[in-house]
Amino acid sequence: MTKTKRMTDLEIANKAAIKPITEIAQSAQIPLEAIEQYGKFKAKIDINQLKNVASGKVVLVTATSPTPAGEGKSTVTVGLADALKQLNQKVMVALREPSLGPVMGIKGGATGGGYAQVIPMEEINLHFTGDLHAITTANNALAAIIDNHIHQGNELQIDPRRIIWKRVLDLNDRALRNVIVGLGGPVQGVPREDGFDITVASEIMAIFCLATSLENLKERLGNIVIGYSYDREPVFVRDLGVEGALTLLLKDAFKPNLVQTLEGTPAIIHGGPFANIAHGCNSIVATETARKLADIVITEAGFGADLGAEKFMNIKARQGGFAPSAVVVVTTIRALKMHGGVAKSELSVENVEAVEIGIANLEKHVDTVRAFGVEPIVSLNRFITDTEHELEIVLNWAKENNIRIARTNVWEEGGKGGLALAKEVLEVLDQPQNFHHLYETSDSVEQKITAIVQKVYGGLGVQFTDHAKKQIAQIERFGWDILPVCMAKTQYSLSDQPTLIGRPENFVITVREIIPKLGAGFLVCLTGDIMTMPGLPKQPAALRMDIDKDGEAIGLF
Amino acid sequence: MTKTKRMTDLEIANKAAIKPITEIAQSAQIPLEAIEQYGKFKAKIDINQLKNVASGKVVLVTATSPTPAGEGKSTVTVGLADALKQLNQKVMVALREPSLGPVMGIKGGATGGGYAQVIPMEEINLHFTGDLHAITTANNALAAIIDNHIHQGNELQIDPRRIIWKRVLDLNDRALRNVIVGLGGPVQGVPREDGFDITVASEIMAIFCLATSLENLKERLGNIVIGYSYDREPVFVRDLGVEGALTLLLKDAFKPNLVQTLEGTPAIIHGGPFANIAHGCNSIVATETARKLADIVITEAGFGADLGAEKFMNIKARQGGFAPSAVVVVTTIRALKMHGGVAKSELSVENVEAVEIGIANLEKHVDTVRAFGVEPIVSLNRFITDTEHELEIVLNWAKENNIRIARTNVWEEGGKGGLALAKEVLEVLDQPQNFHHLYETSDSVEQKITAIVQKVYGGLGVQFTDHAKKQIAQIERFGWDILPVCMAKTQYSLSDQPTLIGRPENFVITVREIIPKLGAGFLVCLTGDIMTMPGLPKQPAALRMDIDKDGEAIGLF
Repeated sequence: MTKTKRMTDLEIANKAAIKPITEIAQSAQIPLEAIEQYGKFKAKIDINQLKNVASGKVVLVTATSPTPAGEGKSTVTVGLADALKQLNQKVMVALREPSLGPVMGIKGGATGGGYAQVIPMEEINLHFTGDLHAITTANNALAAIIDNHIHQGNELQIDPRRIIWKRVLDLNDRALRNVIVGLGGPVQGVPREDGFDITVASEIMAIFCLATSLENLKERLGNIVIGYSYDREPVFVRDLGVEGALTLLLKDAFKPNLVQTLEGTPAIIHGGPFANIAHGCNSIVATETARKLADIVITEAGFGADLGAEKFMNIKARQGGFAPSAVVVVTTIRALKMHGGVAKSELSVENVEAVEIGIANLEKHVDTVRAFGVEPIVSLNRFITDTEHELEIVLNWAKENNIRIARTNVWEEGGKGGLALAKEVLEVLDQPQNFHHLYETSDSVEQKITAIVQKVYGGLGVQFTDHAKKQIAQIERFGWDILPVCMAKTQYSLSDQPTLIGRPENFVITVREIIPKLGAGFLVCLTGDIMTMPGLPKQPAALRMDIDKDGEAIGLF
Repeated sequence: MTKTKRMTDLEIANKAAIKPITEIAQSAQIPLEAIEQYGKFKAKIDINQLKNVASGKVVLVTATSPTPAGEGKSTVTVGLADALKQLNQKVMVALREPSLGPVMGIKGGATGGGYAQVIPMEEINLHFTGDLHAITTANNALAAIIDNHIHQGNELQIDPRRIIWKRVLDLNDRALRNVIVGLGGPVQGVPREDGFDITVASEIMAIFCLATSLENLKERLGNIVIGYSYDREPVFVRDLGVEGALTLLLKDAFKPNLVQTLEGTPAIIHGGPFANIAHGCNSIVATETARKLADIVITEAGFGADLGAEKFMNIKARQGGFAPSAVVVVTTIRALKMHGGVAKSELSVENVEAVEIGIANLEKHVDTVRAFGVEPIVSLNRFITDTEHELEIVLNWAKENNIRIARTNVWEEGGKGGLALAKEVLEVLDQPQNFHHLYETSDSVEQKITAIVQKVYGGLGVQFTDHAKKQIAQIERFGWDILPVCMAKTQYSLSDQPTLIGRPENFVITVREIIPKLGAGFLVCLTGDIMTMPGLPKQPAALRMDIDKDGEAIGLF
C-alpha cells in the first residue's frame, strides 16, 4: 500500500461512523445534565455535576526531539487509548486544542492521523467550541483596557515603553510581530511599540490550563503583570480591576470539551499553550475531569521530553497535585535517522548506521524520564519505509539496556496497532512509581535552571547574560523567585543550538532573559530567539481548503 | 415604581423560566434533526432540512433619529412579537447579534430590555455561538494572506500603499485605529500603514448578512477588492485563491441561531453589520429561515429610518427578493423632546412645546416609510417620566395626519404592553402594500445618492468632492456603478451634521469618498468621518463585570 493511495486524514475521519456525543457521554458515565452539546458531536462538560474524586492514573506521552520527519505523538496517544479500550480498560484521552494558525499555515490539521484520530476532525481543527476565540478576546480586551487607561489620564502611571502585555490572534501573521499602535493624533490614543503573539502564546492560555477552578482562574488573571510604571513598579491586572470581566469572558470556555476517537473512546480536548513560551500541556481541569471519569488517562505534552515532559512534571503535575504513573516516549526510525545525520530526502534509504547514531537522542529522553522516577516505555512508531534491520537495532538496544519497548502501527491499524504498547503500559501501571520533581520551588532561580539543564538537557551548566542577572535580582526583590521556571528553548536540540541534533554533550545553555508570568505562576527563561508569532509559508495550507458542493470541508490534513 | 428599585435586565433574564431550546424548536415546528444545540438554550438551524418555501410576512421595526435618551427599538421588536404570540399568531423575531465591543464598552448588553428580552441574555451578549469570532478570524486570515503574499514575492504586484483590506477585532480599541505593521526588518514582512476596524464593520460581516447560500457566500468572498496593484488595477480575493478557505471558516457560523424571548417566542439572532459603514440588518438567511417557519417575522434595522430602514428597503430587501408588509417607527417622548432641543438632564421635566417641535423628526421618518409604499405604524414607547399632556400631543398629531399609532409599554409589561401595537400591525398586514425601491440599480451613482438624499433625508441635493468625483469615474470604468449605494452618514441627524437634530431643511449632503464593496455588493458613500473602530469610555462597562460565587455573570445590563 503506497502513501499516494491512502485516504487523507479528513477522508478517513469523514467516513467514520461517528456516534452522537450523548452516547459517548453515557459510555463515559457522564450524567446527561452535565453535558452541554455544541452541535451533535461536541459537548462541554459542567464539572460541577461530576463526582469530586479524581483517581484515574495518568500516562504521559512524550517523544524524542522533533524532526521534520515527524514522530506521531498525538497519533500514538489516541491509538494507545483505543488499544486500552480494546483491552476493556476504562480509559480517556486528554489532548490539547489545535491552534488555527498552524492549521491554516502548514499543518492543515492537528488531531492525530490515519486510523488514530479524534473526531469530528474538521470541527476540532477549525473553531471547535470557541475556547481559543474566548482566550483571544480576553487577551485583547485587556490590551484595549490598558491603552484606554493610558489615554484616559493614566492614573496608574503605566510607562508605555514598559508594557509587556501584547495583543494576540489565533493566526500565523508575521506582519503583526512588531507594530506601532495609537497613531493618528491625540484622539486616537498614545503611540507606542507593540506586537501580536499567536493566541497559544498568550499568558491567558497558560493560566487557563493551570487554573484549578473558576475562582483560581480569576485570582491568576488578577496576578498578571501587564508592565511597569514610570518608577519601575509592576502593574497588575488587579490594579486595573478587570480580572472579573476577563473571567466572565472565559467562564464557558473553561468547561472541558468532550469528543471521541475514531474507535469511540471518549476524549477531552481542552487548552493548548505553546510548549516554548509556555508549558505545552492541556488544561489541569481537563486532566482532572478525565481522572474523575476514567481509570486511565492518556495525555501528551508538546515537543520532546526535554520541553513538554519536563514542564508537565515540574509545572503542571506540581500545580495540579498529581503524579504520572507511566511515560511513553514516541520515536520513529525516520526521526532517529535524522538525529543520526540523514537528510530528509534520504530517509527512504535503509541506513542502519544512522539509526545507531541517532538512538542517542532517544536514550537521553529515556534517561530523563527515569530521572523523574517514572518508568519509560518506548513506542517505536511504524512508517512504511522502515526496514527490519533498522527496527532490530532499536529493539536490541532496548533489550540490552532493560528498557521497555513496543512497536506501534496505529496510523494504519488504529487501536489494534497499539495493543503491544498498551500491554507494556498496563504492566507499568501495576507497579509503584517513585515520581518526584527535579527541583524544589524554594531553590534559587539559578539552581532551578541549572537542575533542568544538567538533569534534563545533559548540559554542563548555565551562563546568564548581564541582562538576565539583573532581571533575577529584580525578581528576587519582588519575591517572585519562589515560582517554578518555564524554559523557552529550541525544540530541535537538547541544547540551545537548533543544529546540534542527536545527543550533544559538553554544552552550556545561555539564559538571555527572564520574563515573570505571575498569572501562570512561572518564570519564562529565554535561551534564544523564541518565535511567539509564526509566519505563513509561501503556499499556505489555506490555499488548498474549500467546501465541496454539499458544503463539506476539503483540504484539511 | 422608581427606576432604582427595578431589577436589571440581567436579573430579569436570569429569573425567567427559560425553556430547553429543543422545546422552542418543536413549538416552531423545526424538525429536531435540523437543530444543532449550543449549550441547552441556543441552537444553530441546519437550513437544508427545512421546507423550501418562505412565505412569512416581514414587519420591519425602525425608529426616529437616535438620541442619548434611547428609543427602545429592540425592546419593541421583541415585545411586538410576544404580543402577536399572545394573539395566537405564528410569529418569530429576527434580530442582529450583539458585538462584544460595545457590550464591554458602554452598553453592557444588547438584547432588548426589561420584560421584552431575548434570552439567554448573558450568552447572547458574550460569545453567543461564535459567529462574530468566525468572521473576525476569516477577516484576519485574509489580511495575513495579503501580507504574506507581498512578503513572499508579491506575484500580484499589490501596492502596499493601496491595500484597503483592514484587520478587525470584536472590541472597542482606539489604539488600533491607525497602526504600522511589518516592522522589524526583512524577516518580519513589509512595513506599511494599516488599521483595525471593529468586526461588525468588516465587509465579511456585510457579505455574511447578504449572502443567500453557502455558494453565494463563497462567490461574494471571491469578489472582495482587497486593494490595488502598482498599475492601479483592483486585486480581488479570488486572485489570491482563498475564498474557499474563508468560506470553510464561515460555514458553521452561516447557520442561523435559534433562541427565545422571555415569553418563549422563537427568535433567530444572526449577523449584525454596522448601520453606518454597512447596511445594519440581520442576515438574509435568518430572515428567510424565519419566513419559512412563521407567518409573521418581526425584524429591525439599525439607527433611524434614514439609515437602517432605507438600507433594509434598498439593499437587503432587493438582494433578498422580499418586500416588507408593515413598518413600525419607534419613538419616545424623551427622544422627541431631545429633537425639540431639550438637554438630557432636563428630560424628566414636562415640556409640551419641545414635544411639538421634536415631532418633526418622527414626521419625516413616517413620510420616508410611506415613500417606500408601505404603511407606517408609530410605536410611542412608554417611559415613566412621560406625562399625559406630552403623550396627547403625539396621539393628536397622528390622528390629525391619519397615521396609525399605538402606545407600547413592553419594557414593563412584555407582550401585554405591545398588544395595541400588534393589533395595528395585524390590520396593516391584512391590507395590500405597494412596496418599491427608491431608485433602480441601473441609475447612475449620482442619481442613486440624490434619490436617497431628497426622498429619505429631505435634503436639497448632493455635493461631491473632487476626490469622490474621481472615484465615481473609476467605478464607472470598472463597471461597478450598477451596484446599490450604502450611505455612511451620522445617525444623529437627517443631514450630515450630527448637531442638526429634529427635521433640518435646505441642507446639502457632501459625499467625500466612495468605497466599492464588491463582495457585499454595494458602494459605501462616506458623508463625513465615519467611526469604524469605537473607543472605550473612561469607565468601561467591563469594570462592572464579574462572576459571582456560583460562577454566574454579574454586571451585564
